[in-house]
Amino acid sequence: MRFLTVVRGFSEIALKDFKVGSKVFATRKITRKDLEDFARISGDFNTVHMNEGVVHGAFLNSIVSGVIGTKLPGPGCLVVQQTLNFPKKCFINEEIKVTVELEEIRKIWKVSFNCKVEDKTVLFGDAKLVFIK
Amino acid sequence: MRFLTVVRGFSEIALKDFKVGSKVFATRKITRKDLEDFARISGDFNTVHMNEGVVHGAFLNSIVSGVIGTKLPGPGCLVVQQTLNFPKKCFINEEIKVTVELEEIRKIWKVSFNCKVEDKTVLFGDAKLVFIK
Repeated sequence: MRFLTVVRGFSEIALKDFKVGSKVFATRKITRKDLEDFARISGDFNTVHMNEGVVHGAFLNSIVSGVIGTKLPGPGCLVVQQTLNFPKKCFINEEIKVTVELEEIRKIWKVSFNCKVEDKTVLFGDAKLVFIK
Repeated sequence: MRFLTVVRGFSEIALKDFKVGSKVFATRKITRKDLEDFARISGDFNTVHMNEGVVHGAFLNSIVSGVIGTKLPGPGCLVVQQTLNFPKKCFINEEIKVTVELEEIRKIWKVSFNCKVEDKTVLFGDAKLVFIK
């Protein structure tokens, strides 16, 4: 059995506690300031984001990666492959619900994920992960 | 012909100037402070990043998205689908060279991209884009 050091107030989690079908949830609201900070750090000042308040798809993916990297499966994992689909636009100040679900536990783990604003899916996809320590 | 308003000091670009095979390049070095800022904004405090200085894959993708959203094809475009592959780790303070290449010009545009540190590919993939204005 292998324990993970979990950061930012989450409880300590044993990998053996995960099984196919395990899910975690998180919520996040992105403010205009968050969007501007993200634009500054990424260099993505696309007018779609800056003028219309459409949240960067890469920002949504960052939040999903944060849930994967801190909660399921958590620290020590690294994404090696990913697919992303952005069927609808996400706007600042919308309440985003992130779901990550464990799909496969092998040498390479697989998770699926989605981000929803009420019934509107703004991102869905899957990721393959390895543990590097 | 359709002109784009281009931000951050790039010249005004006419869409007709792009053709299949058009490429743009950009370089970026990610410092520890950048990595910490990204962790704070995304919530991704995975120890792989914080302790070992491995740049978040989602951060690399943000930079690529920035090149797509400001240079090729530029403002007004929105990513609707993407694949990402992270064959090698990227570390802070490495000089990253981003290349984006136009693959298809239709109703949905397609670009391919990669991020290299010298000969080491740290991210490659493709993206489908629409213009929303």
